[in-house]
Amino acid sequence: MSQEYPSILLEKAVNEFSKLPGIGRKTATRLVLHLLRKSDEEVEGFSNAIVRLKHEAKYCKECHSISDTDICPICANPSRDHSLICVVENIQDVMAVENTMQFRGVYHVLGGVISPMDGVSPSDLQIESLVSRVASGEVKEIILALSSTMEGDTTNFYIYRKLIQYDVKLSVIARGISVGDELEYADEITLGRSIVNRTPFTGKTF
Amino acid sequence: MSQEYPSILLEKAVNEFSKLPGIGRKTATRLVLHLLRKSDEEVEGFSNAIVRLKHEAKYCKECHSISDTDICPICANPSRDHSLICVVENIQDVMAVENTMQFRGVYHVLGGVISPMDGVSPSDLQIESLVSRVASGEVKEIILALSSTMEGDTTNFYIYRKLIQYDVKLSVIARGISVGDELEYADEITLGRSIVNRTPFTGKTF
Repeated sequence: MSQEYPSILLEKAVNEFSKLPGIGRKTATRLVLHLLRKSDEEVEGFSNAIVRLKHEAKYCKECHSISDTDICPICANPSRDHSLICVVENIQDVMAVENTMQFRGVYHVLGGVISPMDGVSPSDLQIESLVSRVASGEVKEIILALSSTMEGDTTNFYIYRKLIQYDVKLSVIARGISVGDELEYADEITLGRSIVNRTPFTGKTF
Repeated sequence: MSQEYPSILLEKAVNEFSKLPGIGRKTATRLVLHLLRKSDEEVEGFSNAIVRLKHEAKYCKECHSISDTDICPICANPSRDHSLICVVENIQDVMAVENTMQFRGVYHVLGGVISPMDGVSPSDLQIESLVSRVASGEVKEIILALSSTMEGDTTNFYIYRKLIQYDVKLSVIARGISVGDELEYADEITLGRSIVNRTPFTGKTF
């Protein structure tokens, strides 16, 4: 392997890039040679952005999402409904729900789902801190927005068992046919769920 | 756009990654959050590899390929045939030809091809230095291994005009049907060229 790279420095940089998920050695080489054509300032800007994020980023003490401050802007916003918590796996999911502009509550980032196969147990996730938030008595509803996989379902059930003793409403996001999708191409489980969980038609579209 | 990121540091890092070719904002976010889960040492290793490459990498004074030394290992190797030069566009092409293990000559990296549309003129490329290498009288053959595009053909012709006055053999790499490809799926230009430029069959396969 080593001999194919004309420079050890180049090879080291390619090795680092190819550790990233979904980046093979060919793509890594292309990205590194792209950066090499940029100015010193641009390369340092790239490098500093990553190191600063790693050194300075905090996690919100409330919802455990990434934040520049101890409490993230969403949790610190008094106009958000703090009695409604959407439970998600990761930070990308917070951004995805925020982009819908349909949710005015707050979040709780678990950091993953229970997965014995991958060695992820409930104690690796932010489940106890979710229970503490509910125990404080200010939370009225929890929306579970985890993946609809076996691991997601397991995590939903684990949280359900932990929260059943509290006076809090639990719900899961609706599963159904995507907007714009045609019925004939939908899988039967999704189509089945969309019939069982049908919603009243009020004469107006979403 | 800004509001969707819960952290300005995160957004800055994503912005830097999404400047890379072929990396959109979703992929950039995924890569950055992947790095964020790594240790401080790993993130610094990643960052340092890029900055060190940018600051310390040299270009070979002979062939203009990337190198850790003034003369690259290929040009410095006395067992390579210095009278045979393969002209390529970029460093990836050097690595691609090296990987075939079919070439024992040396290289000349142009740094691109002539492309008036992209503002690349002959003076932006390492063409004069190629002429100097030929003018030294030690070169017997030049193999042109540029892309078979209009820009590649233009560059081939430009180099041909520059070198016609010297006693040097010029050749281009063979174009034809890829090994393992079926004729019925080949484009007609490639198939046509492969018939015109047929090679003698000596009874043994490659």
